[in-house]
Amino acid sequence: MPLLHQIAHLAHVEIRTPVVDQSVAFFTNYLGLTVNGESGDSVFLRAWDDYENITIKLTGHATSGVGRTCLRAASPEALQARVREIEASGRGVGWVAGDQGYGDTYVFTDPDGHEFGLYYDSEWFRPTDELKPALKNQAQAYPARGVSVRRLDHINFLGVDVVANRDYLRDTLGALVTEQIVLDDGSVAGSWTTFTNKGYDAVYTRDRTGTAGRLHHIAFATDTREDILKAADIALEQGVFIETGPHKHAIQQTFFLYVYEPGGNRIELCNAGARLVLAPDWQPVDWTEAERAKGQAWGLQTIESFHTHGTPPVTPS
Amino acid sequence: MPLLHQIAHLAHVEIRTPVVDQSVAFFTNYLGLTVNGESGDSVFLRAWDDYENITIKLTGHATSGVGRTCLRAASPEALQARVREIEASGRGVGWVAGDQGYGDTYVFTDPDGHEFGLYYDSEWFRPTDELKPALKNQAQAYPARGVSVRRLDHINFLGVDVVANRDYLRDTLGALVTEQIVLDDGSVAGSWTTFTNKGYDAVYTRDRTGTAGRLHHIAFATDTREDILKAADIALEQGVFIETGPHKHAIQQTFFLYVYEPGGNRIELCNAGARLVLAPDWQPVDWTEAERAKGQAWGLQTIESFHTHGTPPVTPS
Amino acid sequence: MPLLHQIAHLAHVEIRTPVVDQSVAFFTNYLGLTVNGESGDSVFLRAWDDYENITIKLTGHATSGVGRTCLRAASPEALQARVREIEASGRGVGWVAGDQGYGDTYVFTDPDGHEFGLYYDSEWFRPTDELKPALKNQAQAYPARGVSVRRLDHINFLGVDVVANRDYLRDTLGALVTEQIVLDDGSVAGSWTTFTNKGYDAVYTRDRTGTAGRLHHIAFATDTREDILKAADIALEQGVFIETGPHKHAIQQTFFLYVYEPGGNRIELCNAGARLVLAPDWQPVDWTEAERAKGQAWGLQTIESFHTHGTPPVTPS
Amino acid sequence: MPLLHQIAHLAHVEIRTPVVDQSVAFFTNYLGLTVNGESGDSVFLRAWDDYENITIKLTGHATSGVGRTCLRAASPEALQARVREIEASGRGVGWVAGDQGYGDTYVFTDPDGHEFGLYYDSEWFRPTDELKPALKNQAQAYPARGVSVRRLDHINFLGVDVVANRDYLRDTLGALVTEQIVLDDGSVAGSWTTFTNKGYDAVYTRDRTGTAGRLHHIAFATDTREDILKAADIALEQGVFIETGPHKHAIQQTFFLYVYEPGGNRIELCNAGARLVLAPDWQPVDWTEAERAKGQAWGLQTIESFHTHGTPPVTPS
Repeated sequence: MPLLHQIAHLAHVEIRTPVVDQSVAFFTNYLGLTVNGESGDSVFLRAWDDYENITIKLTGHATSGVGRTCLRAASPEALQARVREIEASGRGVGWVAGDQGYGDTYVFTDPDGHEFGLYYDSEWFRPTDELKPALKNQAQAYPARGVSVRRLDHINFLGVDVVANRDYLRDTLGALVTEQIVLDDGSVAGSWTTFTNKGYDAVYTRDRTGTAGRLHHIAFATDTREDILKAADIALEQGVFIETGPHKHAIQQTFFLYVYEPGGNRIELCNAGARLVLAPDWQPVDWTEAERAKGQAWGLQTIESFHTHGTPPVTPS
Repeated sequence: MPLLHQIAHLAHVEIRTPVVDQSVAFFTNYLGLTVNGESGDSVFLRAWDDYENITIKLTGHATSGVGRTCLRAASPEALQARVREIEASGRGVGWVAGDQGYGDTYVFTDPDGHEFGLYYDSEWFRPTDELKPALKNQAQAYPARGVSVRRLDHINFLGVDVVANRDYLRDTLGALVTEQIVLDDGSVAGSWTTFTNKGYDAVYTRDRTGTAGRLHHIAFATDTREDILKAADIALEQGVFIETGPHKHAIQQTFFLYVYEPGGNRIELCNAGARLVLAPDWQPVDWTEAERAKGQAWGLQTIESFHTHGTPPVTPS
Repeated sequence: MPLLHQIAHLAHVEIRTPVVDQSVAFFTNYLGLTVNGESGDSVFLRAWDDYENITIKLTGHATSGVGRTCLRAASPEALQARVREIEASGRGVGWVAGDQGYGDTYVFTDPDGHEFGLYYDSEWFRPTDELKPALKNQAQAYPARGVSVRRLDHINFLGVDVVANRDYLRDTLGALVTEQIVLDDGSVAGSWTTFTNKGYDAVYTRDRTGTAGRLHHIAFATDTREDILKAADIALEQGVFIETGPHKHAIQQTFFLYVYEPGGNRIELCNAGARLVLAPDWQPVDWTEAERAKGQAWGLQTIESFHTHGTPPVTPS
Repeated sequence: MPLLHQIAHLAHVEIRTPVVDQSVAFFTNYLGLTVNGESGDSVFLRAWDDYENITIKLTGHATSGVGRTCLRAASPEALQARVREIEASGRGVGWVAGDQGYGDTYVFTDPDGHEFGLYYDSEWFRPTDELKPALKNQAQAYPARGVSVRRLDHINFLGVDVVANRDYLRDTLGALVTEQIVLDDGSVAGSWTTFTNKGYDAVYTRDRTGTAGRLHHIAFATDTREDILKAADIALEQGVFIETGPHKHAIQQTFFLYVYEPGGNRIELCNAGARLVLAPDWQPVDWTEAERAKGQAWGLQTIESFHTHGTPPVTPS
């Protein structure tokens, strides 16, 4: 049975930062997210087009890095079926209560140790009058502040063993491999997988430092490539560090900009136009070393820090 | 069991025209499609981002209107399961051979009599050297000619009984209702349904003339709203008739332009930014008469011909 | 001697409003202007790309309407030469001190009674640290708030006698007529004139009510047409009244959106791409009644209020 | 007396190429220009928004490089006055007949030896039926082919002595210096000058090879930055060599893409949004070495070939 679409979508991500206030300022003033409550050391933030209560859970911590990455199952049945697979894999941790707005969550880790949560029960976001959108088919009023990103788009994990991690998501969650980098020695240096009709939702890139559990970046979607050019203008204006871009990836044809939030985590702004993966028999597109040597789509060479900068794995806090 | 995603996507549509040569010129010079073979009275055309061999089958006929609308099933098993449901509904016609590039197709009709085909076997398009794209994750070279639409987006059928037709697609194919117009008397005047993460793939709008089997329009996706403004510029320049737009629909928030191809069929150019329907528990958004009376999103009143112009049902040729 | 370019540009406009606070909120939150001081009943506002201290002088008043429209001369010599012409015309009022940031100003009226000011001495805007731009060739940091209009673009006056007013600007200030509406009876119903390489800076449109001294609208420039689509999205979201648009004028090919600020004055957001008038022997483009009857560029009919709504002439306050 | 605006605009440029047919294919299929006649070894090409008959004169030659750069004077009087200044400078060559569509032209050279022509008499382009635009205020129908550039924007000359060349244009033609690169030793490595309200029309950049008379690039204007992203997509698709970009210059804030036409000449696609230089007392913006070391606006380092690749001076053919 095809497992694709058993996971409805990437739901929200927990990001750790040693400078919570500065990070909140970045997410609200630069990206245009809205604060939607807090709990303990964590602040919850929302992108205007996300229908749930949380897009980012920003948690104060000694280091930067990714915390729990949450996925929403397509149905209660799909949730139970996925949990059975995960338990069978021996990587299950167990059920925990959700944060505000979503229910019981099954926690597990990928082979690299990145933590995931899987749930189905979710309360839709109910905007206050101030955040009420003019059109009822929209979750929240468009903020018109900073980049005003539409929604969380994807997450890119650094991994010691790309294939092991990628196959784990494929086998337990039904992720579909859409594109990958296959080196001359046959090893896979990067793998893009999707749960939806988007080109990708979760990516693993080889961690050249051999460290397990690091984050490469999380990404937010904009409506146009011009929005990303404006994101670069605004980054310059607001003193946000631009690592590379704007330019177009050959892989997935994503137009991108990479910046660092004040906590040190890499953030991508991305747009791939109206591109979707609709073919049910899509075969992975393999990119060779020779092809990668040509640089990005229009020739930009990959910046060195792209291969080295990652934010740390979870450590006991 | 949720049926969503049993149909992979809207695959291609047969459009009838009394002026084949002029219609081909419109599809190639204005929309930027590519001719990909012909058969009998039909010419096959492709949009550059569609991975299969046919986007539009343009068939010479005494009248305009829609012929067979083809959907691709998500798997051989899904195909068989859907055919069983259709047969049980009593609306099945039977298996026929596919055109170039796709295999055996099960033919059936909706309650209004619009003809559908459902298949799984499909050969991916293999571009000639001239049409070979620079990036291997793309089906065909970008034409840079006319509007250069990316892909077929959706079809909008006129229907005598919107609910009967819509429910038929829901019950046999797993279409999800995302938005609808509910009149003060409780009747549904329009219904938007999806098979994918797009906001909609197939729409039924009430035919005020009471005629069964007519077409309201087919639509092509562009990457940006600016592409649609350019489409209006080019329409003016090439003498293509603009019916209404560009403007933004409140429903689905689609930015639109409606033009007529020389055979008289209405064609939409559409873009909804990066908007997707990802929630597995999406509830239909109901639009009331009062809300519709406000016009489109920014206030444009719906043009009268939008309620009257449709292209005819299939008649014995 | 050709007079074109004796006037450097339209500098700033005084707008009257009975609801100053609400109007300030509109100009700052919706348009993205910045408050830059106040004086008496007036608040000074700036667009980020204007190099002088004032873009709009917003003045509390019993009614809406336009106050003084200020132009900057191209040189001290040009100022003196223009003042001599104005004095000779008998429409001069005399010298007054400028507001903050610009010097002695010669006041005069056009035949309709709209008040103008002409000056040369001007202090460039010096941003505070908070408003300091990242790039030194820019006047002020990009606000990334609301529409974030770039600069004042043009003013459109209603006039009883279009030709008399237009010729007055041509003869005394060197305005060049670029386009006009010539009715079947030979009369001119609208005239677009420029002082620069832009298609137009000052427009006169016939006031069908026969009232002298009214304002049709003032306009702000954006970088793209998509910015104007976003301006419509944001207007809807913020409850700003949209009168008509977005659409494209046939005249000057300007992409437009018309909204009303809370005081009742009509505001246009406009963009004409990279279009410039560079020909030194440009001849006025005449638009006939038959051509106007086709509607705007893509067919939108001109909204009735466009012919009736204007904001009142100056009355003794 | 201020000389600015004595020159109406950069009119057209002669480009030499050893591969005329391939270069014509580039200008027509990639850039979207239209062939408008030929004479001897030269082919005349037009951009759709240029009102004169020639945008580019493409001349077969043993080498690449720039031929004569033609400017249109603002009036017959301005032409005579400029010629008197040029003659007085000792760099005048004399009067020659114009090519098709423009009249007697005074030829001269800048200190580096680049050849210029100055004329006033010009016949406006009269489109054939096929090229007739839908809107009468436009020179030619929008081609909707390739990049479809709007008009010639500027020329960038390599020069041995930037200041000598720049001052020559300033003193004889009234060019205004808007921005410049001033090295730590006080010398000027690049200077941007304008004849219009555009940020620049003619640029001199220091030739590090010490060769006189070379061309750095010519540039074409597009309406949006997205048009330039599409230009990069189409370059990749059509096999056009991309040297660098798309990115944003800090200087003049121009969004750019640099490609080479088949003859080897560098071509820029450029857009600066709605930015204009309107201040009559504009002071040159000086960029220091330290500022230049930061790279372009968003951090892209200047590519090495940008400092070395130029196309050769005129040699006896």
